[in-house]
Amino acid sequence: MDMERLKQQMEFIVEADKVKNIFRQNYLADGERRENDAEHSWHMALMAVLLKEYAAEEIDLARVLPMVLVHDLVEIDAGDTYAYDEAGALTKAERETRAADRIFAILPENQGKWLRGLWEEFEAYETADAKYAHMLDNCQPLLLNHASGGKSWMEHQVKKSQIYKRNQHTGEGSGEIWAYMQTLVEENIRLGHVIDE
Amino acid sequence: MDMERLKQQMEFIVEADKVKNIFRQNYLADGERRENDAEHSWHMALMAVLLKEYAAEEIDLARVLPMVLVHDLVEIDAGDTYAYDEAGALTKAERETRAADRIFAILPENQGKWLRGLWEEFEAYETADAKYAHMLDNCQPLLLNHASGGKSWMEHQVKKSQIYKRNQHTGEGSGEIWAYMQTLVEENIRLGHVIDE
Repeated sequence: MDMERLKQQMEFIVEADKVKNIFRQNYLADGERRENDAEHSWHMALMAVLLKEYAAEEIDLARVLPMVLVHDLVEIDAGDTYAYDEAGALTKAERETRAADRIFAILPENQGKWLRGLWEEFEAYETADAKYAHMLDNCQPLLLNHASGGKSWMEHQVKKSQIYKRNQHTGEGSGEIWAYMQTLVEENIRLGHVIDE
Repeated sequence: MDMERLKQQMEFIVEADKVKNIFRQNYLADGERRENDAEHSWHMALMAVLLKEYAAEEIDLARVLPMVLVHDLVEIDAGDTYAYDEAGALTKAERETRAADRIFAILPENQGKWLRGLWEEFEAYETADAKYAHMLDNCQPLLLNHASGGKSWMEHQVKKSQIYKRNQHTGEGSGEIWAYMQTLVEENIRLGHVIDE
């Protein structure tokens, strides 16, 4: 057995633990505390399994699940950039590329290249698998925002136009799931949790 | 589209959020706070992907990953039973079966039956996929206990014999990973984090 290889894998697994301390803007469904990236990624993976039948194109869970599980690891170094943070968005790609350089290099070369490739595919937002993963990435917090009474939307005074702009490609992953999510957004507009303009 | 089916799936996805509030005895690698079931399940799923090459028998990630993602959902109702809680262990199976009856029934029938079947397969600990999943379930907290300087072992004054008894079948999922984990246990015995008797 190649002990050096196993040690690299174990080092990566322990390093990945840090993503449990990267907190996001959205709250859990009960509204009691913010969610972290590990919880978000677990929830996306569960949704990936359960909602496969609604994918806009044929997708491959053997690629989508690893993609989803690692898609936020770069935030260990780069931090979470809130969906509606325009200043943060300007430097996001550069910060995250540097993080990917460090983090995926901890793994044995073949696994590091493979996972980094899946992360780059996710970021490029072009393949059916990446579009399905982005649909989950956008819909999971939307579901929790709705469940928590729009808490994070209200705190940030989010506007309808911001949500629709951010989700302009969400339907490419699944038109059916995005149609469902729109009914939740519209309800939150009606309730005054999202600013209608 | 079957709206009733989609609503059941969404209700299950929101219900599953509660597992983020089920806290375990082990700490994160940095020792700062305890880990919850969603984080634990995410970490196990990542390990399932990365350590497949060490599985004792051929395993199928298309079954292992959903199994791992839902294996602790019953704790939403039944709570976490600590690995070395002998009184809790006596009622664990009955509490968890009642929880499974309620939670998996939220899903559309075909998905609920499928996921419950994977959970029962995990609990039965007989197939190659279940043995691999249990290996991950046992080794993930062991890795974090080691990283955090044995914090949870020391708090509970855990004995070497308890760890080895709990892990008597762990090697059936992967002899190589279990051999690596034993080196960590032995190091923690030497350091006095685990009681040697």
